[in-house]
Amino acid sequence: MFIDGERINTIREEIARAGETRNGHIIRNEVLKQIGAGANTIDVNAGSFLPDDTPHLRWLVQVIQQALDIPISLDSPNPQAISSALEIRRGRILINSISGEQERFRNLIGVIKRYKCPVVALCMDDKGIPDNEEDRVKVAAYLIQRIIREGGLSLTDVYLDPIVSALSADWRSGRLVLDTIGKLRDFSPKIHIILGASNISFGLPTRKNINELFVVMAMLKGADVLIIDPCVPGIISKLITAKTLFGSDEYCF
Amino acid sequence: MFIDGERINTIREEIARAGETRNGHIIRNEVLKQIGAGANTIDVNAGSFLPDDTPHLRWLVQVIQQALDIPISLDSPNPQAISSALEIRRGRILINSISGEQERFRNLIGVIKRYKCPVVALCMDDKGIPDNEEDRVKVAAYLIQRIIREGGLSLTDVYLDPIVSALSADWRSGRLVLDTIGKLRDFSPKIHIILGASNISFGLPTRKNINELFVVMAMLKGADVLIIDPCVPGIISKLITAKTLFGSDEYCF
Repeated sequence: MFIDGERINTIREEIARAGETRNGHIIRNEVLKQIGAGANTIDVNAGSFLPDDTPHLRWLVQVIQQALDIPISLDSPNPQAISSALEIRRGRILINSISGEQERFRNLIGVIKRYKCPVVALCMDDKGIPDNEEDRVKVAAYLIQRIIREGGLSLTDVYLDPIVSALSADWRSGRLVLDTIGKLRDFSPKIHIILGASNISFGLPTRKNINELFVVMAMLKGADVLIIDPCVPGIISKLITAKTLFGSDEYCF
Repeated sequence: MFIDGERINTIREEIARAGETRNGHIIRNEVLKQIGAGANTIDVNAGSFLPDDTPHLRWLVQVIQQALDIPISLDSPNPQAISSALEIRRGRILINSISGEQERFRNLIGVIKRYKCPVVALCMDDKGIPDNEEDRVKVAAYLIQRIIREGGLSLTDVYLDPIVSALSADWRSGRLVLDTIGKLRDFSPKIHIILGASNISFGLPTRKNINELFVVMAMLKGADVLIIDPCVPGIISKLITAKTLFGSDEYCF
C-alpha cells in the first residue's frame, strides 16, 4: 500500500499563491511535511488554473524534483500540461489520469508510450461515469487492454481509479466504490487500485471521521494506493492499525 | 445490524460486587446506559464465578427482565446456568453459546429445543478452534445443520461466531476472523454472524482505536451482530458512519 499526498493542489489558497509568486520554498515545505507524515508519492494538481494549468504544473514539478527525490503524480486532465511537465522531470512520474474518453485517450496515449510512465486510468468513458460497479469494471478492463497494447505498459503500471463521488451528491456512492474496488481486486491480485478518497465526504460535516473510515474500508476491499492528506492527525495511524488487523504486521507495530 | 452490549460481565469488579451483594440497582443502571448508547440486546456474563455461575446468571436475568423489556444474551459455557436462567426469563433470550464440542452440544441442544431460543454457535469443536477460515466455516456448516435438525430452529435463529482471538497472542487473528466472516457471509446473505469484537485488542495499547476499526472492518465483511461496549465514546458513531459509507443510510444521518 502507498500514500499519494494530496496537499500540493492549487485549490488550496496557499498553494495557488505560492504558484503565482513562484515561491518554491512553500511548496517544498509542504512536500517535506507530507513525506514526514508518510507520503510515498506527491500528487501535484494545478486544476484551479485550468484550462491552462501547463506552466503551473511544470513549475511545481521543477521545484519539487530539483530538491527532492520523490515520485510525483501529475494530476491533470490536460495532456499538454502533463506532456510539458514530463519534459523537465528529474524523477519518477505517475500520470494522473487517462480515461476511456476517446479524445482524452488519444491525446495521452502517445505521451505514455513515449515516456513509459505508469498511469492512472479512470473508470469512465464518453458515456460518463457508470452508475454501477459492473460497468465500471468493464471500462477498467477495456482501458487496461488498450493501455498495455497501445502504450506499451505492463499490467502493474496501470493504476485503476474506480472514481469516488461525494456521498452528499449520491448516498450510494460509498457502497458503489467499495463494491467496484472488490470486483477490480477479484480481477487480479497484482493490479493497482488508486482512490481519491477525500472526495467521499465533500459537503458533509466531520469530514475527517468519514475519510478515516472510508480509507480503511477501501483498503480492506483491496485498494492499495490512497490519495489523501497524510498530515491530517490520525489518518496514518488508522491505516497502520487496519494493516495490523488485516494481518500485514507481525509485530503489532 | 444490532449491538449486544457487553458491560454486564462479572469480570468487571463493579458488576461482580453488585452480583455478590445482589444490588439490582447498579445492574439496571448499567443496562439503561447501554440501551441509551445504542444496545439492542444485553450480554450477561457471570464467568468469573465459574464453574458455578448458575445463581449469578439467574439473578442477573431476573433483575434485568423484571424491570426492562430488552432481550438478553445468556453468555455462559455452562448448560446448567443457561437452563436455570431460562426458567425464570420474562423476555427474549439468546443462548450464547453452543459449539461443536460433543459434550457441550449434547448438554445444550435439549434446552434449545425445549425453549426454542436462538443460539450463538462457536466455530470450534473437540479438536479446538481451527487455525484457518475453511475449517471454521466447515464447523459452522456442521453446526447449522445439526442445530436446525436437532434443535428445531430455523436458519436465522443460529448466530455464527467465528471466534475472535487476541492479536497479541496471534498476529494473524484479525485477518483470520475477517476472512472467516467473508466466507460465512458468502454462505448465506440471511445468516447472522456475531462477534465478540473487543477480544481482538486484549493486551495491546490504544484498545479503543483498534476495536473501533475492527468492528467497522467486520461489519464491512458481513458481521451483523457486534458484542461491544456501546458506551465507549465514538464507537457507535463510527458504526453509523460506516453504514453511511456502505450505502445503508439514504440521508447521511
